[in-house]
Amino acid sequence: MEEINVQHLPFELTKEFLEEIRQLIIDQAKDEIIAKIEDLFPADITSILYELNGDESKYLVQLLDTKIAAAIISALDTDDRKKFLKNFTSKEISAYINIVDSDDAVDILNEQPVRIREEVIALLKDREQARFIIDLMHYDEDCAGGLMQKELIKINVTQTVTECVEEIRRQAEDVEKVFSVYVVDDDGILLGTVSLKKIILAKRGSKIQDVYEADEIVSVQTYSTGEEVADLMQKYDLEAIPVVNIQGRLLGRITIDDVVDFITESAQEDIQVMAGISEDVEEDDSVWLLVRSRLPWLIGGMVGSFLAAKIIDRFDDTIALLPAISAFIPLIGSTGGNVGIQSSSLIVQSLADKSGLDTTLWKRLQKVFVVALINALIAAIFAFGCSMLIDSGEIMLSITVSLSLFAVVMLASLMGTITPLVLNQLKINPAVASGPFITTTNDILGYGVYFMIVYFLL
Amino acid sequence: MEEINVQHLPFELTKEFLEEIRQLIIDQAKDEIIAKIEDLFPADITSILYELNGDESKYLVQLLDTKIAAAIISALDTDDRKKFLKNFTSKEISAYINIVDSDDAVDILNEQPVRIREEVIALLKDREQARFIIDLMHYDEDCAGGLMQKELIKINVTQTVTECVEEIRRQAEDVEKVFSVYVVDDDGILLGTVSLKKIILAKRGSKIQDVYEADEIVSVQTYSTGEEVADLMQKYDLEAIPVVNIQGRLLGRITIDDVVDFITESAQEDIQVMAGISEDVEEDDSVWLLVRSRLPWLIGGMVGSFLAAKIIDRFDDTIALLPAISAFIPLIGSTGGNVGIQSSSLIVQSLADKSGLDTTLWKRLQKVFVVALINALIAAIFAFGCSMLIDSGEIMLSITVSLSLFAVVMLASLMGTITPLVLNQLKINPAVASGPFITTTNDILGYGVYFMIVYFLL
Repeated sequence: MEEINVQHLPFELTKEFLEEIRQLIIDQAKDEIIAKIEDLFPADITSILYELNGDESKYLVQLLDTKIAAAIISALDTDDRKKFLKNFTSKEISAYINIVDSDDAVDILNEQPVRIREEVIALLKDREQARFIIDLMHYDEDCAGGLMQKELIKINVTQTVTECVEEIRRQAEDVEKVFSVYVVDDDGILLGTVSLKKIILAKRGSKIQDVYEADEIVSVQTYSTGEEVADLMQKYDLEAIPVVNIQGRLLGRITIDDVVDFITESAQEDIQVMAGISEDVEEDDSVWLLVRSRLPWLIGGMVGSFLAAKIIDRFDDTIALLPAISAFIPLIGSTGGNVGIQSSSLIVQSLADKSGLDTTLWKRLQKVFVVALINALIAAIFAFGCSMLIDSGEIMLSITVSLSLFAVVMLASLMGTITPLVLNQLKINPAVASGPFITTTNDILGYGVYFMIVYFLL
Repeated sequence: MEEINVQHLPFELTKEFLEEIRQLIIDQAKDEIIAKIEDLFPADITSILYELNGDESKYLVQLLDTKIAAAIISALDTDDRKKFLKNFTSKEISAYINIVDSDDAVDILNEQPVRIREEVIALLKDREQARFIIDLMHYDEDCAGGLMQKELIKINVTQTVTECVEEIRRQAEDVEKVFSVYVVDDDGILLGTVSLKKIILAKRGSKIQDVYEADEIVSVQTYSTGEEVADLMQKYDLEAIPVVNIQGRLLGRITIDDVVDFITESAQEDIQVMAGISEDVEEDDSVWLLVRSRLPWLIGGMVGSFLAAKIIDRFDDTIALLPAISAFIPLIGSTGGNVGIQSSSLIVQSLADKSGLDTTLWKRLQKVFVVALINALIAAIFAFGCSMLIDSGEIMLSITVSLSLFAVVMLASLMGTITPLVLNQLKINPAVASGPFITTTNDILGYGVYFMIVYFLL
């Protein structure tokens, strides 16, 4: 007798569970497999698929109800989904595409070769869905048009709450998540919204006209960037945002779950850029992909270092006379790199945060200058002390190191501030400026300054 | 005559608008100010406040309806809010705290000195709100208990849809956003949820028993971490997640807007950690704060470099004989740093991503080893070529450089892999391993290896 116990804990995939499923698939034990997974959420079944091979996954998914299978396929990662769907025919794929949300449908189809894409669209039973998909395919993946879905509930401003409830009923299957109903005029121009809470509390006979909120409307254009969408939804705490065209006609909506994914991916991308990884990779990607994503900046950094080597090599007579000079090369290089990244990441952060007025370049530089000056002074004094300890007595060397460090901190702060601003103007992700690029540039500049000061003072 | 035009564009704060508002405040032109801002969203008025001084802000906020003023105060940043509320008495603050959501109320009060906190709670008119606040104050800010709010709609499983609608009506003021109604038993144990869509479509007389979804329930415990909450909500595409105690009693809920803020802040924090910034600062913070947040890692990195200088200094006889050795110091240092950060950030990323089975340490290291080996080989060959070009003829030097680089890439990959895993075990944010810490460590190790090889080969 199993004790009935309300289980609130999320599903966690274990090795044992996976082995059982695998064995059941080998045994083709359909009923037992279904019994084991039918209580799971689609997203949990997705995490099982990640661990199965292509044939096993297909077998498992085909045992499931088409609706659940479609939800599972929507939840898969791009790369895994591509591999997974290779085992399916266009006809099989079209059965799933028929019922997923239109935005997910477009994402899935865009991963497929053109031939499969066309075949699947032609095979779709739901012609409205086909129209939705063709419509959405025009938009760039990362703009509002590419993030939106066509599924939403809209109602004419002249209708009643009762008619609105009927519309919700009619579309209950197609529109899974309803947060509010969009109110439009005869031309389809978005006028406002009514929340479901309001609909529940309104008298059934009331006119939409009298209950909808006309002033509580924030919308975006199809060409708005993903960042703009995310900023607005975050600023106004929205669960969904309507997308309109230039005339204000309602075209679709973007739901918060897609924006959360977008925010997470953007943050991931910035971190990879800062780490000098040039492709979107994960630890469990192939060795070849991992090597390829890391080589460009590895080699790029090395090229920079060889340029630095060229500079240092010119001073080998000086170094031969006073080898202690070379002991401070790491200090100059790494301090320049650290300061540069500190400066640039603050600028990148404030470029991303759009609340408040923009700081003018001039005010920005003034502040950076003061902060850099204080840090440079403290660093220079500290360096003077430490280098006196290491090469006691060599006071001229200590002065040289200290002076160079001062210059390097100032220069690296300036570079770290200007580079992301310039990149941003050029529409390049400014986070690039917090990566190996700024370190390498600052290294070279730093060595140049150091050896110039060495040349003049020593 | 102004043409009436449906305006879907978000509000953007301009200098002119701000100047006008400032002037109107000086003129104490109440009605004009209200006319100018009454159509704005609270979040937009918040962005105006950021640009005003304390007295101006207070004057503006006190012109507004208490409800809107409370929403504005909820939306302020921690630092700005602290400054802003300094101008208010405990009684004034309590009027706002009385109506904000309980989770925001706790955040606001936690920023205040203990005396003010106690006074405000004692002055609250809404005693239920006071109870909510005292209850929530027990929890740590970043766990589920600290993120949750007490405002939610719950209904006993034995009640009817009609009673449920009445409950929504009764709480319409207190619970601003309703996504679904939580269904509990007589002991308050969470049994399931009913979406508002279902309530709209259900017959009014139906029993909750017959319409609620018992199997579609994902909840968290009060002690679940913010990351766990964010992962679950993202995985299952939830707008709100219920929080229960160990017996399964419903205690509160966490809404997606708070989780979006949490995700954004965590990503920000990781980037700051990677950039070697030790406090949560923004570009527009005070110079002193900016200096202070950057100095620890600046000095930390310098200490590392002086250790490196100590190592290099021991070899000054060798360097005096062959000064070209020193030209390759930057190559060794920066390659080690770059490789270390590449490795560690991949590990940090996969530690954060909890889908699928955990990779075992052994499998992880095997893969890292293969990737490192390929990169190390390519880097070593490239370095051999380049160093032959720079110091043509010095074949032994080129071999030394190439061999050292091979060792450095291997070593830095290993360090970059192990450090975040160890930090994670110690419950320290593993992103620390992608910051100056790993660069500095790898620098020192790299120079050690390089000069050891120099010593043996040259």
